[in-house]
Amino acid sequence: MLFISLSACKQEPAKDTESGKEITQVNESSDPLPSWNDGPNKEAIINYVKDVTTDGSANFIPIADRIATFDNDGTLWSEQPAYFQLFFAMDRIKSLSADHPEWKNKQPYKAVLENDMNALMQQGEKGLMEIVMVSHSGVTTDEFDTIVKDWIATAKHPTKNVPYTDLIFKPMLELVKYLQANDFKVFIVSGGGLSFMRAWAEGVYGIPKNQTVGSSNKTEFDYNNGNPVIRILPQLEFMDDKEGKPVAINKFIGRKPVFAAGNSDGDLQMLQYAASNSYKNFELYVHHTDSIREWAYDRESHIGKLDKGLDEASQKGWTVVNMKEDWNKVYNSDK
Amino acid sequence: MLFISLSACKQEPAKDTESGKEITQVNESSDPLPSWNDGPNKEAIINYVKDVTTDGSANFIPIADRIATFDNDGTLWSEQPAYFQLFFAMDRIKSLSADHPEWKNKQPYKAVLENDMNALMQQGEKGLMEIVMVSHSGVTTDEFDTIVKDWIATAKHPTKNVPYTDLIFKPMLELVKYLQANDFKVFIVSGGGLSFMRAWAEGVYGIPKNQTVGSSNKTEFDYNNGNPVIRILPQLEFMDDKEGKPVAINKFIGRKPVFAAGNSDGDLQMLQYAASNSYKNFELYVHHTDSIREWAYDRESHIGKLDKGLDEASQKGWTVVNMKEDWNKVYNSDK
Repeated sequence: MLFISLSACKQEPAKDTESGKEITQVNESSDPLPSWNDGPNKEAIINYVKDVTTDGSANFIPIADRIATFDNDGTLWSEQPAYFQLFFAMDRIKSLSADHPEWKNKQPYKAVLENDMNALMQQGEKGLMEIVMVSHSGVTTDEFDTIVKDWIATAKHPTKNVPYTDLIFKPMLELVKYLQANDFKVFIVSGGGLSFMRAWAEGVYGIPKNQTVGSSNKTEFDYNNGNPVIRILPQLEFMDDKEGKPVAINKFIGRKPVFAAGNSDGDLQMLQYAASNSYKNFELYVHHTDSIREWAYDRESHIGKLDKGLDEASQKGWTVVNMKEDWNKVYNSDK
Repeated sequence: MLFISLSACKQEPAKDTESGKEITQVNESSDPLPSWNDGPNKEAIINYVKDVTTDGSANFIPIADRIATFDNDGTLWSEQPAYFQLFFAMDRIKSLSADHPEWKNKQPYKAVLENDMNALMQQGEKGLMEIVMVSHSGVTTDEFDTIVKDWIATAKHPTKNVPYTDLIFKPMLELVKYLQANDFKVFIVSGGGLSFMRAWAEGVYGIPKNQTVGSSNKTEFDYNNGNPVIRILPQLEFMDDKEGKPVAINKFIGRKPVFAAGNSDGDLQMLQYAASNSYKNFELYVHHTDSIREWAYDRESHIGKLDKGLDEASQKGWTVVNMKEDWNKVYNSDK
């Protein structure tokens, strides 16, 4: 109940979810970030939040301006061996393949149906985009929401063999709840699909659908004889990555963040944008250093470039989280 | 303080504003809608809100699904003798004209500089769009915000000779606050400009910037040597009108409204979309019938078509507000 009442006073509540149980623990413990090891990074986060939320502090930030933006893939949950949304797209292609016998011998579909990731990657940006477009369109938004909900409830990660939502970072979830409990309005700003994330993110993270920003397909309104629907078209409308992130933040939020968290070059412009806030601001960069519990990848990754972001984070003194050293638990499912 | 504490428990608070004082009255009075005359329309609103927010009611709606969407022009404030944003655009053209001597003899600018509304209307959609684009671009989002704030604080309505924010409908503001006080998340969904509205709507209506949806220009991120800005380009990105409204609602909100209010054919698809909600829903259509206190216009108006919306509202039994009969006060400034 603490979660419910708290949420009602922070944001739209997400009831009866893992995250719901989560925040009860977070807020009842004296330590808001129990999965974070003591050290300069944990200290920096807590000192920042106390500084900007304490009445009378020289750095006090009014509630309306307490905007926090979090990348999703690699920041709130894992992104290896590929973006989880790609596995959704592949599973969707497989379920659609019954109506497309021609896909057996046609790339990029052939690679998907044969589970050949190397062949799929060889199809390049164009091939991957075709898979994503075909798997994310041709249905109404309500139908797509159901398809994603069913997938997230049943699909298993290819190597860890657990539900994808078990691969959410417990320390980051604690951070989201800690910020919400201190009247920050927390947004997801991800290169991932808007409709894909909204199907499960609210329940898992406790972040309302209207505070989840992502890439989107074009859609159209269909009056549908008095039963109106929104149809998803197979055309990319907006890519919420790199320069697109500050652009989307301006469009969906209308305020510059004071707190931003990311883990790749795709997040760099969002972090730069937050770093230019006239209010005291906080930039957090998740560095994947744990080859045992998660994955270790530094400056290069097939998940996308990481070098510029990591370099600038180090140069500018942003908080670079060393997953191996800073986190005593990695996953939401860790006991 | 009631407003502050209430808002902290509903939505991002807008402090020290007219609306701030407003809600204190609303919530301290036993009548949440004092500017509404007793009658079937006021009764329908209050009965609906009580029905869907009472625990155990067969029509109870969970807080997360209590989404209300309001059109702005003609629904939350007046729109005569032209959309107020057009007057902003004209004033902006005048202030820019010093650097454009050629505008004196070039339409549509000539009509604006000569305050010739008839000549301006004769320039048609294309001419009006040129005025809007030139007056709403070429600056950063921060610069534009300041320009609009200065204008809304100083500009006067051409015939009523009062600030435009004095022409906000007091009964509708009471309705917004009443819904917010009952855990509805209230959004503006307007054909008006996103950045234009966000510069003042939050303070006036108590509706957060990230819950204000509107038409938008394309923008671009400029790193600007370490001082990042978002630049507004002279290209229309999205027109939030007619079929665009449900499309924008899906994109910005991610949920179908249970309560929708409008006043023209531009709002019809939004009302149809809300009317298709499986939750008990409420559609409100503002009919401009008061030629003395506001303006009276029925099925035809240079402000835009009104016939389809009004007909469908009547056919489907939506709540058609008769401004002259239903409202004992019209404007926020009425004593």
